[in-house]
Amino acid sequence: MTSAAGVRVEIQPVGCRVQCARGTTLLEAAIAAGHQITAVCGGKGLCGHCLVRVIKGTLAEPSLAERDRLTPRQLAEGFRLACAAQVLGDCTVDVPATSRPTSQRLQIAGDTHQVPFQPAVTEHLVIVQPPTVRDPRSDLTLLCDALDHGDATSADHSVLMRLPGLLSRENRTLRASLRGLEIIDVRPISQQPLGLAVDIGTTKIAAYLVDMETGATLAADGVTNPQIAYGEDVMSRIAFTMRDDTRRLSTVLLDGINELVGRLCPNPARIVDAVVVGNTAMHHLFLGLPVRQLGLAPYNAVVSEPVDVKARDLGLRLAAGAYVHLLPNVAGFIGADHVAMILATGLDRTAETVIGLDIGTNTEVVLARHGRLLSCSTASGPAFEGGHIEHGMRAVDGAIEKVNIEGDNVKFETVNAAPPIGICGSGVLDAVAALRRAGLVNRRGRLLPHVRVRETRDGREFVLVRPEDAEGRALTLSEKDIAEILLAKAAIRTGIDALLREAGTSVEELDRIVIAGAFGTHIDVASAIDIGMLPGLPLSRVEQVGNAAGVGARQALVSAPQRERAVAVARQIQYLELMVQPDFAARFAQAMYLP
Amino acid sequence: MTSAAGVRVEIQPVGCRVQCARGTTLLEAAIAAGHQITAVCGGKGLCGHCLVRVIKGTLAEPSLAERDRLTPRQLAEGFRLACAAQVLGDCTVDVPATSRPTSQRLQIAGDTHQVPFQPAVTEHLVIVQPPTVRDPRSDLTLLCDALDHGDATSADHSVLMRLPGLLSRENRTLRASLRGLEIIDVRPISQQPLGLAVDIGTTKIAAYLVDMETGATLAADGVTNPQIAYGEDVMSRIAFTMRDDTRRLSTVLLDGINELVGRLCPNPARIVDAVVVGNTAMHHLFLGLPVRQLGLAPYNAVVSEPVDVKARDLGLRLAAGAYVHLLPNVAGFIGADHVAMILATGLDRTAETVIGLDIGTNTEVVLARHGRLLSCSTASGPAFEGGHIEHGMRAVDGAIEKVNIEGDNVKFETVNAAPPIGICGSGVLDAVAALRRAGLVNRRGRLLPHVRVRETRDGREFVLVRPEDAEGRALTLSEKDIAEILLAKAAIRTGIDALLREAGTSVEELDRIVIAGAFGTHIDVASAIDIGMLPGLPLSRVEQVGNAAGVGARQALVSAPQRERAVAVARQIQYLELMVQPDFAARFAQAMYLP
Repeated sequence: MTSAAGVRVEIQPVGCRVQCARGTTLLEAAIAAGHQITAVCGGKGLCGHCLVRVIKGTLAEPSLAERDRLTPRQLAEGFRLACAAQVLGDCTVDVPATSRPTSQRLQIAGDTHQVPFQPAVTEHLVIVQPPTVRDPRSDLTLLCDALDHGDATSADHSVLMRLPGLLSRENRTLRASLRGLEIIDVRPISQQPLGLAVDIGTTKIAAYLVDMETGATLAADGVTNPQIAYGEDVMSRIAFTMRDDTRRLSTVLLDGINELVGRLCPNPARIVDAVVVGNTAMHHLFLGLPVRQLGLAPYNAVVSEPVDVKARDLGLRLAAGAYVHLLPNVAGFIGADHVAMILATGLDRTAETVIGLDIGTNTEVVLARHGRLLSCSTASGPAFEGGHIEHGMRAVDGAIEKVNIEGDNVKFETVNAAPPIGICGSGVLDAVAALRRAGLVNRRGRLLPHVRVRETRDGREFVLVRPEDAEGRALTLSEKDIAEILLAKAAIRTGIDALLREAGTSVEELDRIVIAGAFGTHIDVASAIDIGMLPGLPLSRVEQVGNAAGVGARQALVSAPQRERAVAVARQIQYLELMVQPDFAARFAQAMYLP
Repeated sequence: MTSAAGVRVEIQPVGCRVQCARGTTLLEAAIAAGHQITAVCGGKGLCGHCLVRVIKGTLAEPSLAERDRLTPRQLAEGFRLACAAQVLGDCTVDVPATSRPTSQRLQIAGDTHQVPFQPAVTEHLVIVQPPTVRDPRSDLTLLCDALDHGDATSADHSVLMRLPGLLSRENRTLRASLRGLEIIDVRPISQQPLGLAVDIGTTKIAAYLVDMETGATLAADGVTNPQIAYGEDVMSRIAFTMRDDTRRLSTVLLDGINELVGRLCPNPARIVDAVVVGNTAMHHLFLGLPVRQLGLAPYNAVVSEPVDVKARDLGLRLAAGAYVHLLPNVAGFIGADHVAMILATGLDRTAETVIGLDIGTNTEVVLARHGRLLSCSTASGPAFEGGHIEHGMRAVDGAIEKVNIEGDNVKFETVNAAPPIGICGSGVLDAVAALRRAGLVNRRGRLLPHVRVRETRDGREFVLVRPEDAEGRALTLSEKDIAEILLAKAAIRTGIDALLREAGTSVEELDRIVIAGAFGTHIDVASAIDIGMLPGLPLSRVEQVGNAAGVGARQALVSAPQRERAVAVARQIQYLELMVQPDFAARFAQAMYLP
């Protein structure tokens, strides 16, 4: 719908939007929205670095420069050069990671709880004796004898194919990687072994490269989950697989991970082991499994057991014989990432009563009490990632992340102190809490009269940033935006309360709250308590632990016993399906009110 | 080299040769040689059924009919239509199995020594409970619960991919195939499980289809090993891989086996387990392993341990999660087929002193004595398969297989009593024995004067069939042919004697001789003893057991304990390298004499 004022361009995966005139190029629109796109040649259509993909909307036909630089297949898939493509109507475009000068702020660090280094894949330097005419033992027998590891008698097919050539080229001095009784890789001694831990989020993928001789993390990096072009949340991607097929989403995910691995490590053939976690849908799509049933009651998974699969069977390019290990799932909406979070935070071993949260589009909540683990999943929606919020955006430069209201004035902070261009999830949450503290919003989320509150066709909105402070474009928070946040906070709080009630306890007996995940790290805990999303514990008893799922994945990578522990954790978790709780709807409605 | 009398055409894989005029078509030449080629359209270039491949030689340019029926790639690879291609010079052509109206006589039966049915892959019919909202167990968990097989918790990746769809289409009633703790296949209940046993010979491939619910053999079939186009014997194929690469020989072998499997069974996805045996070179080429080192001292194998590999990793089209099991090798020239032969004949368990032989281009010999197995390999050459013999051919219709000389007359028998067109291996051996009995050959293999002995440029030759009895073409046995047979018999006898000497025993203490393999089944044992190839035992103590390697492969297919036994057999075998025996050359030269 093109308005008289021009057309609206939405830039993915950040999610920011901008109004501009018909005929504007996508590059100009992105710059206007405060979003950077690589344009080495200065926008002359020469370098091809500003590749973007049109998801929907109307643009002018590709220019000569574009027909010159892009393949017919790229054009058919909607790829354009941002510097040349002119917008004619409202549109949404995706800017691939390769066309962005800087990464998004991704939560890839996370606290590391050390576990002893006891990897599932062990490394051996060997000198293999030559065969003789009187004792012509096979190459594999000679290798096993050199390993002095009586049990290793089998080898991956790829090892057998490469062994004779390597023995001859490397003068019979090799590295061998063993997994249980199987030799999964042989390499020249110069190629030290590496490991890979991956946390596949619905929005972001975080990957860690680990030294498999010491267990040290060597590098970490993240990318936007490329599936985002096929749906923002899990449910819309499941719906996509029902219209199209599962393969497309699996392929783009694997391509994205292969690209990420390539950035972390110039020679992925050195990666001899990998651990992957994700929610159940991401876990299934990574394995190429159908996800249809995750979208239909009773939402059961195809597999909840831990999975070991050769990386080559998935198309993941690691060492030819390497396995990928996936931690167990619990249910359709309690995935391996939740198990990994519990591994990392030790909630399976605590004597306290603790609530653990991993906040995202779906928020998983766990209650640890008296050796019991009780978990549920709540549909908290995309509001915390800037979705469904008029000026919402992800936490990139220029996103408002903190808000305070003092009389007629609004004080705010943006990511990296850049000029404000939108509001990220923690900013929206903070703004609602600030409005409540200032008495400018009632319990149902309606704005009260104020110098910064103005009427629109759809209700009232609060002007956070006046046009004169944001390059002529007011940044506002509408009653509809507030309702989105109240939905999200109600979902989370309903889950917390349901777990406490099921365990026969209450907020009063709660010792601690542990918040994991990217969003959880950035929220203002006091604001979250203010609006009733979290129970009112003293701030000293709330911990923000970062990407705990990524830490758990790394623990399982460097420690085989941690994989056993993950199985025990998954068995220990009792899954609570909120939908079948008595009075669920009434309790949810009640939680929609501000305290 | 085109002689004045015309050109010479050699027809592979049978190996028969014929003289014909320039301009003759390959189809006419083949018919003249007594070799049938399918020509449905009667030789009009219409049906395309008479496809042959020119290995070497000069032919006229492809006709219009050929350009019409054949792809440019087929033409580039030397394929022609036999009915249209005219010979201009001496040439050798290969007639693929698909262009032959009848199969060659292949030794695919073999005595079956029953073993109890205890397969490595077990079959289960299950009804899988549906998940519920209160107990949303995963599909795999529900399947494992239905199996009531506490240990099965892992499943092949392909099983996970197909499980949800099958559960829904088959109304939750399935077959599952388990191998140890792994679910390797799920299928509709209408698809009973099958097994495959394959014996890959240098010349022939024999395959058996087995009912994996009872162990019964359902079908057997054989094809010529398609690698024959790249070299007649193991050494020439190894040499080919040094010039070209291993992949070509592996690919044609796998293609050939896939084609054979397709003939045995319309739905190979039902084949849930396979056992493959072959000599070490065939074993390696089947696995795609390099064979270079099998051609160079000390001739050690890449792998001698038993190998379990997913069929999909090799390109063998069975059930998606099925494994192929390869029995262990012993050394570069003592392969898994030798181990299988010992399984089938029980030589590892005999209390007697027994010599076992599997006669082929390489002949493997084993001596069982006092619980010891002592094996060697001898290069007996292609003479027994008709190779290097002027009128030699394989054992197809019209091949002379028995010879007796009475005065001036020669009595002979041909395969299927067809008109004589050449001599197969057992016929040549029989002819030499007959010449010896008739006093027409001296100890060194020289022919003595006789009405049927005539002089040629290269020495003397004996006329077995006069031109008037063989469509104008004399069938002869030359002194050079006799020398080939003496070489072969010397190789085998030297091996037998070396084993007896190494074990500190002699022919006098020998209880039995067991002869396996296609050639071994057809030879006249008395003739083999007459010429000194075999020690002079009473005929009642010599057994001809057929394709014992194929029987051993089937035993290992239907019985996991037999796979264990094969490992024990391979360990028990002591390999004797003849080349390093003292006086080997002198003993070999001595064995060249006729007794």
